[in-house]
Amino acid sequence: MSRISLAEFRALVEAELPLVRIFGIAVEDLGRGRAVLTLAGGEGAMRPGGTMAGPLLFALADVTLYAVTLSIVGRVPLAVTTNLTINFLNKPGLGLVRAEGRVLKAGKRLIVGECSIFDGQGGGLLAHATGTYSVPPEKA
Amino acid sequence: MSRISLAEFRALVEAELPLVRIFGIAVEDLGRGRAVLTLAGGEGAMRPGGTMAGPLLFALADVTLYAVTLSIVGRVPLAVTTNLTINFLNKPGLGLVRAEGRVLKAGKRLIVGECSIFDGQGGGLLAHATGTYSVPPEKA
Amino acid sequence: MSRISLAEFRALVEAELPLVRIFGIAVEDLGRGRAVLTLAGGEGAMRPGGTMAGPLLFALADVTLYAVTLSIVGRVPLAVTTNLTINFLNKPGLGLVRAEGRVLKAGKRLIVGECSIFDGQGGGLLAHATGTYSVPPEKA
Amino acid sequence: MSRISLAEFRALVEAELPLVRIFGIAVEDLGRGRAVLTLAGGEGAMRPGGTMAGPLLFALADVTLYAVTLSIVGRVPLAVTTNLTINFLNKPGLGLVRAEGRVLKAGKRLIVGECSIFDGQGGGLLAHATGTYSVPPEKA
Repeated sequence: MSRISLAEFRALVEAELPLVRIFGIAVEDLGRGRAVLTLAGGEGAMRPGGTMAGPLLFALADVTLYAVTLSIVGRVPLAVTTNLTINFLNKPGLGLVRAEGRVLKAGKRLIVGECSIFDGQGGGLLAHATGTYSVPPEKA
Repeated sequence: MSRISLAEFRALVEAELPLVRIFGIAVEDLGRGRAVLTLAGGEGAMRPGGTMAGPLLFALADVTLYAVTLSIVGRVPLAVTTNLTINFLNKPGLGLVRAEGRVLKAGKRLIVGECSIFDGQGGGLLAHATGTYSVPPEKA
Repeated sequence: MSRISLAEFRALVEAELPLVRIFGIAVEDLGRGRAVLTLAGGEGAMRPGGTMAGPLLFALADVTLYAVTLSIVGRVPLAVTTNLTINFLNKPGLGLVRAEGRVLKAGKRLIVGECSIFDGQGGGLLAHATGTYSVPPEKA
Repeated sequence: MSRISLAEFRALVEAELPLVRIFGIAVEDLGRGRAVLTLAGGEGAMRPGGTMAGPLLFALADVTLYAVTLSIVGRVPLAVTTNLTINFLNKPGLGLVRAEGRVLKAGKRLIVGECSIFDGQGGGLLAHATGTYSVPPEKA
């Protein structure tokens, strides 16, 4: 079972992470070591060429891995990304995209996860990320 | 000499990359294989804990490497990130940050670069990224 | 169906990639966009602390993604890694480890894949890698 | 000043990391937060196409960052790589290559560094890596 509830995680990011509102990121589902989030897209998400800007997909992956991390360690706002690698695989449109994150390793100090981002329509794989969150010592 | 002028690159991202306006990204300097950009920060840049959200630093790194890429291949809007790895090194505040990008390899099809992001005040190193841009075949 | 046979891939790496013999890497299975390889381990694989050295797991991941790539493009020896990110998740012993690779994107010029490395005994996840192979232009 | 001497680091890896002998890795220089190592190359280093196999460059980068890490934390054999990203930039020959590593962040628990690998002849940049070492809690 997740150590943070869906409602509690939503409240945390809505209050303290403005970019979820800016980008239209929504937390759809949360379980221990897994999370599903979406990003709305739209005109503001555009990059040259008319596809979705990579940083939006990165933001979605990062918040998804934050959800995965807090599902394991509980409400520790200062869990922070230490590094993240993202591969952009297929050109996204400007519509809804959907991220599925899962834990790869739940250590005491480091949580490693992966995140796959799919097109909200056809479901094609748009991007894949792996990242590490560090849990502050007092909470580790 | 850069194959895209500073004015031309600024015009491109201001017209077709809304997130530069959303995040307050400014292109300060551009030469062949190198670029300097800043990001303004502010309340909207916050993450839980009161520091700057990682995706903003990623966005800054990604646009910086886009500038580095176009400085080499010229105005090819559809040059796209194939992958990017970012390491977050020190906690950023919410003020101005400054990115310095440079090319590591200028291939016909792939441009690899690195980007260091510094605090706008003390100048401490906040993040480091390496990434690859792919140049579309017709232009490669 | 794989565009290179298991026998043909084995022959290629046994003839031209000495580290498969040095490290005891064996190609177990190969299909289109997927491959299973093992690495024997042993005393020579040790690192300080008595666990398996990271570069051996990297070597296994890299050869696995090479197999995945050639399964898609056929016998193109000069397909080369452009980048690879590996996360070490759990301490390996010195015994057999097993890698499962699969394609994430099969582009004309770039093949992106992921590889999970498991303990040969208990099956725990030891490492995870994502990497990109570049296919030379004449073959792309 | 480095918290491990050049002689002490050499002795550690020669005794407990067989791959330095297998690959001909030599520790040339070591200072606080920086290290220079070389790898001899030769026939055993080959990959299909006649260039140097990527895993050898990875091994060199990994041992270089291990030296950088121990230069900061002292003789802590169980400092381990948590992740490493390597970009292969130019085709290496089979001769000597030279790695220069430096620290990007020296945290209590995580040491982040970067490593550039150069051709031993002309000095061209062959590969670039960034990686993170984790220092075990009792020593952190």
